[in-house]
Amino acid sequence: MSFKVIAAKQASLLDQELMSTMGFSIDQLMELAGLSVAQSIYRVYPPTTTPSNKSSCLVLCGPGNNGGDGLVAARHLKLFGYNNIQIYYPKPTNRPIFTGLVTQLQQFGIEFIDSTQLSKSFSQSNLIIDALFGFSFKPPMRPPFNSIISEMLKWQLEQDKKIIAVDIPSGWDVDLGPTDACPEIANYQPDLLVSLTAPKPCSLKLNKSKKHYLGGRFISKQFAEKWGIDVPEYPGVDQVVQLQ
Amino acid sequence: MSFKVIAAKQASLLDQELMSTMGFSIDQLMELAGLSVAQSIYRVYPPTTTPSNKSSCLVLCGPGNNGGDGLVAARHLKLFGYNNIQIYYPKPTNRPIFTGLVTQLQQFGIEFIDSTQLSKSFSQSNLIIDALFGFSFKPPMRPPFNSIISEMLKWQLEQDKKIIAVDIPSGWDVDLGPTDACPEIANYQPDLLVSLTAPKPCSLKLNKSKKHYLGGRFISKQFAEKWGIDVPEYPGVDQVVQLQ
Repeated sequence: MSFKVIAAKQASLLDQELMSTMGFSIDQLMELAGLSVAQSIYRVYPPTTTPSNKSSCLVLCGPGNNGGDGLVAARHLKLFGYNNIQIYYPKPTNRPIFTGLVTQLQQFGIEFIDSTQLSKSFSQSNLIIDALFGFSFKPPMRPPFNSIISEMLKWQLEQDKKIIAVDIPSGWDVDLGPTDACPEIANYQPDLLVSLTAPKPCSLKLNKSKKHYLGGRFISKQFAEKWGIDVPEYPGVDQVVQLQ
Repeated sequence: MSFKVIAAKQASLLDQELMSTMGFSIDQLMELAGLSVAQSIYRVYPPTTTPSNKSSCLVLCGPGNNGGDGLVAARHLKLFGYNNIQIYYPKPTNRPIFTGLVTQLQQFGIEFIDSTQLSKSFSQSNLIIDALFGFSFKPPMRPPFNSIISEMLKWQLEQDKKIIAVDIPSGWDVDLGPTDACPEIANYQPDLLVSLTAPKPCSLKLNKSKKHYLGGRFISKQFAEKWGIDVPEYPGVDQVVQLQ
């Protein structure tokens, strides 16, 4: 399926306009975005097909909205039957939506781990969700995130581990993909990329062997036309559509 | 399918606890609730099966959260391919989530009608969504809502019109169903009832020939157990499950 992409500067402006002109709250957008991430994961890696039927997930959450999408996705994954979920959220953001998302997850009995538990969690997890950074990331990748990413990529070499990137593989330039400004991720290819609202130019750098879904089903045809982006036909009530 | 119900007083307390202990914002809950209403409608009355393929919807929104669920549902219905949607929202609530929902709908090109357009809209609509009042309704039914309900029930006699009730058929007592305190709705039976979070006792008064779905997939098993309610198995990533 061919699709138009949306450049870095545009993606940021579009996001702002969703919350101004379009009237959405961050809570609404994040809920729908995270739901679509969880639905994409269910499609590609349903809870019953992973080794010994355990479907263990480690969700790596960064300090911004990308991390928030990951927190929402974790809750929906739990509701979808993924019973072993751990979250690593080393720099929690002290804003109501983020503290609320953490409370919700705690109430669902989902464990937040600290840095001393991270290696063990990587070793036990089949699905690693990269919700560290999105389209507003600026290099370089600072600690502790540079070492988290490096460790993640080391674990990806194991056959039973799959990485799911939320909107942008962390560290990739939105327009260019991996660049020299972020050497940690020079060879980073997620197994599944879930673009939100519209694919970014860097998604063209995704290897053809990898899966690519689009989620964030919340813009009107008029809005898409105004921004010159294609909204593919989502089937039925699905919150996601497969692009590759 | 058998299911437990949740009484009026409990429903109200549960709703409060979702936003306190559980950490949800009203924006999140309303988004997921409205999405599940739209998904239920799609299941029972998909956009291609109504006369002349038009699937016209009239969404009747009350001043409270039930009306907000209707506003969210209208947006998702538009995204699901229902192209003729009108909204009657005679007493809009001046709180950010509600004004935001109205802005979103306007940006989607969805028409808000006034009282002079209501009869025409009823006559042209196949699907009428009753999002007027939920579990916090106290009789009597006041103007203009008493006459809106009466007109709605008159139009329901026409074969091509179906009524979808959000959480509670408006005017029904949460525990008892239709009562003498609200004579307007003495014979009111929606064609489809979408209970949210948990069915209320009045749902037992729904005729067996009518459809009943459950939506609002956002509570954990622990939370459900604490409140003594059954959460049925939602299939896959579905936001709704059919009860009847």
